[in-house]
Amino acid sequence: MMDAIEVIRAKRDAGELTTGQIDWVIDAYTRGEVADEQMSALAMAILLNGMNRREIADWTQAMIRSGERMDWSGLDRATADKHSTGGVGDKITLPLAPVVAACGAYVPQLSGRGLGHTGGTLDKLESIPGWRASLSNGEMLGVLRSAGAVVCAAGSGLAPADKKLYALRDVTGTVESIPLIASSIMSKKIAEGTGALVLDVKVGSGAFMKTPETARELAETMVALGTDAGVRTVALLTAMDRPLGRTVGNALEVEESVEVLAGGGPEDVVELTVRLAQEMLEAAGISGKDPAKALVDGSAMDAWRRMVAAQGGDPDALLPRAAETLTVEVPESGVLTRLDAYAVGLAAWRLGAGRARKEDPVSFGAGVTLHAKPGDLVRAGQPLLTLHADETARFERALAALEGGYAVGTVSEDQLPLIIDRVTAT
Amino acid sequence: MMDAIEVIRAKRDAGELTTGQIDWVIDAYTRGEVADEQMSALAMAILLNGMNRREIADWTQAMIRSGERMDWSGLDRATADKHSTGGVGDKITLPLAPVVAACGAYVPQLSGRGLGHTGGTLDKLESIPGWRASLSNGEMLGVLRSAGAVVCAAGSGLAPADKKLYALRDVTGTVESIPLIASSIMSKKIAEGTGALVLDVKVGSGAFMKTPETARELAETMVALGTDAGVRTVALLTAMDRPLGRTVGNALEVEESVEVLAGGGPEDVVELTVRLAQEMLEAAGISGKDPAKALVDGSAMDAWRRMVAAQGGDPDALLPRAAETLTVEVPESGVLTRLDAYAVGLAAWRLGAGRARKEDPVSFGAGVTLHAKPGDLVRAGQPLLTLHADETARFERALAALEGGYAVGTVSEDQLPLIIDRVTAT
Repeated sequence: MMDAIEVIRAKRDAGELTTGQIDWVIDAYTRGEVADEQMSALAMAILLNGMNRREIADWTQAMIRSGERMDWSGLDRATADKHSTGGVGDKITLPLAPVVAACGAYVPQLSGRGLGHTGGTLDKLESIPGWRASLSNGEMLGVLRSAGAVVCAAGSGLAPADKKLYALRDVTGTVESIPLIASSIMSKKIAEGTGALVLDVKVGSGAFMKTPETARELAETMVALGTDAGVRTVALLTAMDRPLGRTVGNALEVEESVEVLAGGGPEDVVELTVRLAQEMLEAAGISGKDPAKALVDGSAMDAWRRMVAAQGGDPDALLPRAAETLTVEVPESGVLTRLDAYAVGLAAWRLGAGRARKEDPVSFGAGVTLHAKPGDLVRAGQPLLTLHADETARFERALAALEGGYAVGTVSEDQLPLIIDRVTAT
Repeated sequence: MMDAIEVIRAKRDAGELTTGQIDWVIDAYTRGEVADEQMSALAMAILLNGMNRREIADWTQAMIRSGERMDWSGLDRATADKHSTGGVGDKITLPLAPVVAACGAYVPQLSGRGLGHTGGTLDKLESIPGWRASLSNGEMLGVLRSAGAVVCAAGSGLAPADKKLYALRDVTGTVESIPLIASSIMSKKIAEGTGALVLDVKVGSGAFMKTPETARELAETMVALGTDAGVRTVALLTAMDRPLGRTVGNALEVEESVEVLAGGGPEDVVELTVRLAQEMLEAAGISGKDPAKALVDGSAMDAWRRMVAAQGGDPDALLPRAAETLTVEVPESGVLTRLDAYAVGLAAWRLGAGRARKEDPVSFGAGVTLHAKPGDLVRAGQPLLTLHADETARFERALAALEGGYAVGTVSEDQLPLIIDRVTAT
């Protein structure tokens, strides 16, 4: 007979939790036998005293076992997925999933919604009229077979322990723990049943991990968890000191993604899409395919249109636009030395693109368009940003968020390279 | 507008909480605006990252302000109280309160019930037929005026934040924090309105603090808190490696206390009673009174009888006795080198003297009588302990608790001195 207090005390006193203790506490918490106030005390003890690799693996497996595990092994193609730890303007899933599908893998991707200043893939796709995020397992398989890629919401049966624990951590100041973050992400991705996984760990002001060091620790922890669970896993550390691409928002990012799928779009979005696609294909064991080519020969666009249509969306529909816009001008001529990802993300959030609470709606049209990126030469009076919102009342607080968030100087300043590092299983 | 997560994060990241943060979080928790799962995460962060003297003082004051504060300043005598951190056989309040009353101070003592292996003063007094622990403030004042001492349960209006937080800590593994223990004890004692306070901080296996070092830290913290709040406070560190006196249980300890009040009783109980009484009188500014004399001249006994009668008890009533007894014999001749306080306390608890949950009843007659104390010469086959219980079925687990809890050897072993140290305001 286990006891929650005994488990809490063990971690509080910096001990190692046994496999039995971890299995019991996750199961009992899911069933409601361990109370929220006990789990939050344990989460705080884990945040402050850590968990070793074996404990994190056990914790992850226990969360996977709390629900169903999907299985794509009966399919005729390899599966590959990508997970991003979240950033500002990070629409990469939208072009990436169809590109990889066009190159011969199946991409079964369960995605999330935005919370706070980072956007969510499902919110972006929902700006397409008719598109549905919620699919049954049977529908998910149908879309995967017909389009090669499916992006949808995780059903409630997948890692329910993680869902419950994540909501608890969110209100108890226990989010910022690498063991808890890694096990939360990886329990869902392993339960999702993908054979190969590429992790895009964002680094910088707009990301959860502010430094390459902490990002590397998270990446290494997640790669180890995936590898231990039999998923071929690799991680890239990528820049999130400035926004990705030239749009931040829901419909705005869908439009930019369609440009990329049409062979155009911003350089950084194209580069990161192609690189992540190469990693996914390699991890899935698919060779001889060029994702860059799929972007220009129309095959990725075809997959995108099939994927959107298969989930009820109209790929030709006009996307929602915000009623109001406001232009922020370049204050003086020179080089744009800084355009901070967090400031832009916060502004987009305040414009209505994001949500403060899980139950809030988002504005599909709201967001920010970037007319220049750091390193660009700019002239005083040129448009720097366009803010989009449904009501003019939102502009004031968005402008406040941007204060100090950009700077013009005389010489370019160093930025993080777009792709900072690659982490593989050791 | 404060936010629980912000307060939790500040302490989680080893920061110092502001007075405003502490005031807000205690008030909001009492009102139910800060949830249990948030407070338990904060309690764990405090346990692991500590609080400084200013934070502990603020935390204590905020808990006091959560309820009413009693005021005895209109009385014609000084007030003095004692608090023990809890031990096995610790019946000292029973002779002490009337002794100090007989020497001219008023003793308004709010006491608690036992939980786990340590006994509670109210449980002991309730073994006296008719005696009532719950008094209104008016009744409390009446008993104090007529008997000079009152020992009763704290009303629900006193430090309600502490009541709520204590129950939470009990189930979340966050009891063992010196800042939280000290503020819990001192919020109640300061709100109780006593002018002078003597703390009996127990040290050893049967106490909460196992070593003199941790006990001294707790004592220093509490003395500082009392002093800062204008209460003349002093602490003694006293031995709890072996039980105090020769009885452990409810009615059994009342009987022993009455022996002490009649001028007899075990040496250690008498010595500690007299010493604590001297400390209380000195802190209350009363000189020229000898508590040892009050024990032999009948004045303390008179105060006891008035106090018991004023709370509905019959001081001449026969006390409950357990139906069954079992004698544990000395295994071999020699010196009793060890009689462990925790083992005896656990045995008494299992015999029915204590409770596992707050709502459980206690057996008034159950407990343990000690026929020898460490250092005594004993002969094989002599009675060492008598176990008392209402059902014989309880003996087996009590005997298991005592296994290894006592030892007979050839030479006396070192024990803690009865009074280890004295801690005063610096």
